[in-house]
Amino acid sequence: MTYIETLGKKAVAASRDLAKLRTSEKNALLTLVAKRLVAERLYIIEENTKDLAAAKDNGISAIMIDRLMLNSERIEGIAEGLRQVADLEDPIGQVVRGYTNLDGLKIVQKRVPLGVIAMIFESRPNVSVDAFSLAFKTNNAIILRGGRDAIHSNKALVSVIRKALEDAGITPDVVQLVEDTSHEVAEELMQAVDYVDVLIPRGGARLINTVKEKSKVPVIETGVGNVHIYVDEFADLDMAIKIVINAKTQRPSVCNAAESLLVHETIAEAFLPALDKALKAVQPVEFRADDKALALLPDARKATAEDFATEFLDYIMSVKVVSSSQEAIDWINTYTTHHSEAIVTRDIERAESFQDQVDAAAVYVNASTRFTDGFVFGLGAEIGISTQKMHARGPMGLEALTSTKFYINGNGQTRG
Amino acid sequence: MTYIETLGKKAVAASRDLAKLRTSEKNALLTLVAKRLVAERLYIIEENTKDLAAAKDNGISAIMIDRLMLNSERIEGIAEGLRQVADLEDPIGQVVRGYTNLDGLKIVQKRVPLGVIAMIFESRPNVSVDAFSLAFKTNNAIILRGGRDAIHSNKALVSVIRKALEDAGITPDVVQLVEDTSHEVAEELMQAVDYVDVLIPRGGARLINTVKEKSKVPVIETGVGNVHIYVDEFADLDMAIKIVINAKTQRPSVCNAAESLLVHETIAEAFLPALDKALKAVQPVEFRADDKALALLPDARKATAEDFATEFLDYIMSVKVVSSSQEAIDWINTYTTHHSEAIVTRDIERAESFQDQVDAAAVYVNASTRFTDGFVFGLGAEIGISTQKMHARGPMGLEALTSTKFYINGNGQTRG
Repeated sequence: MTYIETLGKKAVAASRDLAKLRTSEKNALLTLVAKRLVAERLYIIEENTKDLAAAKDNGISAIMIDRLMLNSERIEGIAEGLRQVADLEDPIGQVVRGYTNLDGLKIVQKRVPLGVIAMIFESRPNVSVDAFSLAFKTNNAIILRGGRDAIHSNKALVSVIRKALEDAGITPDVVQLVEDTSHEVAEELMQAVDYVDVLIPRGGARLINTVKEKSKVPVIETGVGNVHIYVDEFADLDMAIKIVINAKTQRPSVCNAAESLLVHETIAEAFLPALDKALKAVQPVEFRADDKALALLPDARKATAEDFATEFLDYIMSVKVVSSSQEAIDWINTYTTHHSEAIVTRDIERAESFQDQVDAAAVYVNASTRFTDGFVFGLGAEIGISTQKMHARGPMGLEALTSTKFYINGNGQTRG
Repeated sequence: MTYIETLGKKAVAASRDLAKLRTSEKNALLTLVAKRLVAERLYIIEENTKDLAAAKDNGISAIMIDRLMLNSERIEGIAEGLRQVADLEDPIGQVVRGYTNLDGLKIVQKRVPLGVIAMIFESRPNVSVDAFSLAFKTNNAIILRGGRDAIHSNKALVSVIRKALEDAGITPDVVQLVEDTSHEVAEELMQAVDYVDVLIPRGGARLINTVKEKSKVPVIETGVGNVHIYVDEFADLDMAIKIVINAKTQRPSVCNAAESLLVHETIAEAFLPALDKALKAVQPVEFRADDKALALLPDARKATAEDFATEFLDYIMSVKVVSSSQEAIDWINTYTTHHSEAIVTRDIERAESFQDQVDAAAVYVNASTRFTDGFVFGLGAEIGISTQKMHARGPMGLEALTSTKFYINGNGQTRG
């Protein structure tokens, strides 16, 4: 039996045991894990230090090292996240619809767990705990495969969780860490259709694409955002400047940050130099512009075709001047990664046709794209942001980790 | 550009045009197609005759030829199906949830089309029209790949639909038939991730498994049913006999027909001979039994391990005696294809634990499994029965052909 087969079998068995756990038992365990993480914080930080040392030796960037780092405050934050998940309403067992049919059958469609979830993720070790908490709250077993650079941190976090599970009399195999971080084992996990019901990758475009390309297990695509803002000829230009600055610079490394700016030709001359000036006062941004925009932005570089397809995750933005709202929509539908897109306009018809036609999970009128987030959208949690159309689209909360089952009760009915 | 690329590009363009169609326009078109199919019935029957002649030359079974055959009555039935879809409530544009968040953003989650659906199916040509009608009602473009043996019938049906679309001023590319029925082209369709949003296979286990194995496009698995009935020690034995007879013999060729019988050892001696006798009076069934059942069923054959994993679709049934309800549940969870499963019992606890633990789309207490069906379940339509847990599970109606999109309207909000 291979390593993944062993993990897979244990996960399936654990998911069956989990089916019997009540909401109160689940919430008590989540609260216990929160307490244990804080109690064991020195051990966790010690293990995390090993990852940080290795990262420095490998010359990893300061931003990545910051994402990897755990301290008492961050561990308290992770514990607080667990307590919040404990407080969320339990979707399992909720009746989606129910009725008595013509034959007198009582048909009830209920929310049930998916079964076994696998997650492949990069860098930030808090994802281990977040993902476990959402999977556990929905009675799913989870197999975690984090990055090699966070292996000591992930091992420490998962061992604290497993100890808490054992002490609560629950099989610890409801959460398992793939400790062999080789590509071969990751690829075996992507093929494990007999054990894994859904695979959720979280990380950069390269990781997502590899998983999409190689996985036989059903995948929920997440997170890549080549996000556009279209400033229409009927835009409030001051509002547009505020929105572009926020969407591009408030946190450029995240998936809902803007990457590309489309401007209607009628207002390009008034808008682009004003935006450039406003940005220079706050946070300079490198523009990669088409010819028309280039004439209005003295410091810009000429954009290549690839620039318009790139998620920069940096203070860089592609810019294009369009001659109609429809051109903007068509352009976005060519380059979108189906995450978040925005229009700035005062015109109702322009706003509506943009929202109806642009093919993305979240389509904004007159607001920053930075709001696409499970917490901001009121889901109470977020396991990722789906950019596909099947199963779940946009920010995913607990409900995205559930399926449904029809319960049919009769008293001897047969079909005529 | 390959054949599938050409079809794919046209389908994507057509799906964008479709986005603008109103409910009244969609319903009018469906009604027009119904009228045209009846008006063109002689042409359709003439083309169908070519398929029937080829089928006879190829020595295809009488049952399969019957499935292939179209006559005036069946065409009227197909037309009636179209009128029923026209009458269904339109899910597109329905608001799933909506609220104003803390930032004053108006967030509305609406049902939207999936985009482009592909369907690979066998034999029955009415599937072309059914699938088109459900896809069209939900503003999706569809690519149909039917079997070689129905190619003339499918061409005729699709050409009548496309002519009606043209006359109504709608791009006929909202429905396209893959006229090259080679395996190579089918496999290219399974890889067409740039054009196809979801692939729904409909047919036998071999087709479903090939699609699952080879497809890169997201798949909704449908229809394979290794369906069990477990007769518990606390069953009403008369009811159990009625249910087994119905589930096994009323229409053995369909996916919700029973294939395997589990009997609690306490009542096996009373139940199995009585069932055998009752079946012989109605419709003899060949039992393939384990040792304990074999002793009680004089005409049975000894079951092989494979028999318990086989969807017979015939008057054949595997039989096993179990010593507990939990053994039945565990057995079913090993052999189930996650379609429909049933328990016959008077005991509340047995019924509940069976329904909670058995991992299938539809789990019955005291009723025949033959009821698993979109119409019987009140969905008003059925594009197939999903046996997977993601996106849709069990009978799929119009809603299964939709995704959702977040519409967010602000007045200049930025994230702090």
